[in-house]
Parts: sequence; structure tokens; C-alpha cells
Amino acid sequence: MSHPDLPMTVPTTPITTHALPEAVTIYEVGPRDGLQNEKAVVPVEVKAEMVTRLLDAGLPIIEATSFVHPKWVPQLADAAELMGLLIDRIGDAARRMPVLVPNEKGLDRALDLGLEHIAVFGSATETFATKNLNRSYDEQFAMFEPTFARAKAAGMTVRGYLSMCFGDPWEGGVEIDAVVRAGVRLLDLGADELSLGDTIGVATAGHVQAMVAAFADAGVGPERLAMHFHDTYGQALANTLAAMQVGITTFDASAGGLGGCPYAKSATGNLATEDLLWMLKGLGVGTGVDLDKVVETSVFMADALGKTPASAVARALAGQ
Amino acid sequence: MSHPDLPMTVPTTPITTHALPEAVTIYEVGPRDGLQNEKAVVPVEVKAEMVTRLLDAGLPIIEATSFVHPKWVPQLADAAELMGLLIDRIGDAARRMPVLVPNEKGLDRALDLGLEHIAVFGSATETFATKNLNRSYDEQFAMFEPTFARAKAAGMTVRGYLSMCFGDPWEGGVEIDAVVRAGVRLLDLGADELSLGDTIGVATAGHVQAMVAAFADAGVGPERLAMHFHDTYGQALANTLAAMQVGITTFDASAGGLGGCPYAKSATGNLATEDLLWMLKGLGVGTGVDLDKVVETSVFMADALGKTPASAVARALAGQ
Repeated sequence: MSHPDLPMTVPTTPITTHALPEAVTIYEVGPRDGLQNEKAVVPVEVKAEMVTRLLDAGLPIIEATSFVHPKWVPQLADAAELMGLLIDRIGDAARRMPVLVPNEKGLDRALDLGLEHIAVFGSATETFATKNLNRSYDEQFAMFEPTFARAKAAGMTVRGYLSMCFGDPWEGGVEIDAVVRAGVRLLDLGADELSLGDTIGVATAGHVQAMVAAFADAGVGPERLAMHFHDTYGQALANTLAAMQVGITTFDASAGGLGGCPYAKSATGNLATEDLLWMLKGLGVGTGVDLDKVVETSVFMADALGKTPASAVARALAGQ
Repeated sequence: MSHPDLPMTVPTTPITTHALPEAVTIYEVGPRDGLQNEKAVVPVEVKAEMVTRLLDAGLPIIEATSFVHPKWVPQLADAAELMGLLIDRIGDAARRMPVLVPNEKGLDRALDLGLEHIAVFGSATETFATKNLNRSYDEQFAMFEPTFARAKAAGMTVRGYLSMCFGDPWEGGVEIDAVVRAGVRLLDLGADELSLGDTIGVATAGHVQAMVAAFADAGVGPERLAMHFHDTYGQALANTLAAMQVGITTFDASAGGLGGCPYAKSATGNLATEDLLWMLKGLGVGTGVDLDKVVETSVFMADALGKTPASAVARALAGQ
């Protein structure tokens, strides 16, 4: 049997099923959530190249880094240097990129640089709040309060991340109602958007739809929610489809599927941007993102990290 | 940050969304479609162990091997020996396992062993018929005719596989109507079930639903169809969810995601049985299959093949 040239190109006509959005927003987390969970530390120049390539690929939102203490995340110790580099090169486009800030100290750094968007990281469970934030579940909200207040007063938008929404490695199952309560508290503090994280990748499609319904019952519509899926158990894309079917239009993804999983010995990390793009392209759901450029960026980063991309699409198209 | 013991167990309460079936049938293709696409050749004893382990895990249908000429598929050159071993050990349970037969010669071997179910492999496209079957598109049906007729006369059931239903590496896109025409020809020959193969893994969810609708328009309901997804582009599980939503209840899967893709330099093969089971368990869709036993079998086979499982669930649960 002879083989076709690779990579093959199969022209697919987009086929939309009813009840799907016309377009969705991909919130790219590779430079932050991806790189912070990779073992290798990447030079700041490579990170700047990654971010500008992703911008050139058309990704509308790119979370560039995190102003967390280097003791906790040494991979992102160069956060201020990276933002300085990006601002030098692309100016306001860099200032529009959200950065994660854990507390007021991080906020001060973001304000100093004139950044417009921050993200704050909370936990839906007591145990993860204790282990990741060194605060009790209730104390985390007290810690967030001045950060939110000052950021909002400065005209910033604030994204609230909520982790362990679909399962917690220490506590096991997490009640949907508890997630809604935690989410509402972040929104009440002033969060403009809530990103619900399946940090350990255990969620399945019905769970996702039930979560969205429970938020709607609490007065929080799908337009205020983003979904942040990890592919640890291979469920991320099926969960994305299920979420789109109930009105979610913002999805976090990581170019190349960078990130790994800090809570399982598994190669798979965040939902890969390419795998998401492949599905959306096939469904005729608009993104404004150039798939080939994302794949090129993922291959560039895989080379920098000395590994093959976790993204199925990147591997298939780039022959890796 | 301390880490929980691995593998973690997150107790998930099944959450069913409406319009999903109460139960589905997993048609296990690992020993045939999986192993025939692996580079390494596995000893017949290991294959027999794989098949009996999968049977013990509760898989209701296991396609055990293929009576194709060893020149084309050296990995399955021991097909008759394997079936003999299995019949010695588990008797009628082995005779109930379907085997692939390419033509009347293969059928003769299946009849000699007293097997009850065969599968026949056709192509939805002209090019793949030429390259894989050495027949034109029309000639393939002429070749199948006596095989179907004699098998049905002997009281066998016949599954018809149709490959390249969602894209062809040489021809590119494949018209849905052309797939329906080919499928109807196999059904007219006497096929009891039609397995629609996304051989190169390019399909997306809307395409799958449109295919099922087109078959229904032609008088072929979803109860006569099975879906055979490959995960080359990471789409297999999202496509499965979409197919279930339109009434499909039989899904082909391969333990550990064995199989690779013969038409892309990619590590991912058939939809992994474990990844499918994880989703179905979460959705409360019954299968009768023991996930842990499938994972154990996948790890056993990965060791035999000298690789890590392609299944995300197997990697996460087995720490590989």
C-alpha cells in the first residue's frame, strides 16, 4: 500500500449542528498555565517569541505570565522581565494581556507596568485552598478582597479562576452547589468572568452541563463563565462540546497542550488549542485563529522544551 | 505543596443528560485493528492472554483477529493458531468472537473453526478500495457478494466495515451521500451491522451527526450503525458524544488506544476503550465493562509492545 504525502490536508466543509454558538473566544493559557507546569525552565526570549507568535496566530486573549513568588513557581520567575520585553516590542497589545496575580503584591507589579487585565486564582475546595494558597477556604476570599477592590478602582478587569470544580485529588468528589457558592463569592467581589477549572481532568460531559445549569439557577448565565479543561483523562474536548451545547462561549486552552498535570503521572495537560481549533473548524464555529500558526508555535515550543507536543493535532500535522 | 497518593480515586456520581442511551455496546477491536497497526509482532500466547483478559473485563464483543493473508498483515499471521488456542481454552465464547475475513478464503477458515460472526472490510472511496483491496470501488462489492451469501447461508452474522467515511488521505473530503450509497450496498448484500470508520481521525461532531441523519433519510436507522473512531486529531470522544446524542449505541474501541495511525506520523490510534469507559461512567451510560480490568490489560499489552499506552485514562490511572 502506498502512502499519501504528509501532512495530508483533508478539506472539510464546516458542518454546524443546531444550538451551537456562531463563534467562541479561545483564552490562551499556554504561556502561563502551560509553562508553569512544565519541568523545564524556558528562557525569557523564547517565552516572548511564543507569546508574539500566538498573537500573530490571531488568539484574542493570551494570559502571558504570573506574578507569583518565584519560590512557588520558578518557571515564571522572569514574569516582570517578560512583560517588559513584550511591552517594548508590541506595546499596548502586551498591556492588554492578562496576567495572574495571587495577591496585592502581584497587583502592584501589574499596576506599575500599566497592565489592563488580571486574573486571580481561587479554590472551590478547602483542602486545595490550604495547600495551594496557604489559606482556609474562607480566608482566600478575605485575601482576594483588597486585590479585587484596588484592581477594579484602577479600571482593570478581573478574571476569577476557580480550581478543582469537578473533583479534588484529596477530597474526591466536589458538590456542584459548593462550586456555585464559591463562584458567586468571586463574582460578588467583582470578577468580570469566572473560569471553572477541571484541574485534574476528571469531569465528564453531563457533569459540565449540570454545572452550567446550576450556575444559571443561581443567576449566573453562561456568558459570565469560561471553561478550563485539562485532558488528563481524555475528556476535555467532549466536555467542550457539551459546554457549547449549553451556551458557554469562552474556553481556556494551551498551545500544544503544554502543561502536564501536577496531580497525576500523566503526559497530558490543558486542552490543546489545536485540538479545540480542529473541532471548532469542523463545526463551523468561528475563532479568528490560524490553526497552522498555532501548530508551528507548538512545534517551536516543543523543541525548546525537548519533548513532543501533547496535542494530537500538532503531532498529526507536524509529523511528531 | 504536598501531593495525594496516586492513582487518585475521585468518586463521581453519574450525571446523565437527556437524549442519551441508557446503555451502549462497546465492540472491542484492540486484538485485531489495534495489533495489526502496531510495528511490533506479539507472540500468540500474549494475544490469547489479551483476549481472555478483555473477556473477563466484561467486553461483550471482541474482534479477535483477521484471516487476511500474512503478506499484507504479518502482525496477524497467527490468526488460525490464535483462534485454535482460544477455542481450546474458552470454547464457545471464542467461537462467538467476530473475526475479519477479506474474502471467501478467509470465510472458509472461519467456517472450518465453527465461528459464528465475521466482519468484512469495504471502502467508501475509490482510491482506498484500489490501494487496500486491490479492487475498484464497484469490484469490491462483487468480491464481497459470495462471502456474504455463503456466510449468511451458514447462519453467521456479518458486520460490514466501511472505511474512510469522513475523509480520505488521497481524495480529501468524502461526500456523505457517497458513504450512504456504499453503506446501503453492504446492507443490501446482507450486512447485519455497518461500522462507519473515520480511518484517519479527521471527523468532527457535526459531521458525525449529519452522517447519521443521512443514513436515517435513506432508511437506515442508528440501531444498524456502529461508529469506529480514530483519535488521530483528538476528536474521537467528542464524536462519540455527538453520535450518542443522535441515537448510536455501538462504538468500536481499542484497549489502551492500541493501533497507531497508518496514514499519519502520530502516536494515537483507535479510540481508547478506557477513555470511552470514563466518559460513559460519568454520564451514567451502562456498558457492563470493568474499567480497572481494561486498564490492567492495556498496561500488560503496553509492556509486551515496549511502549506506554496511548489511552489518557490508562496513563493517568496506571501512572505511565
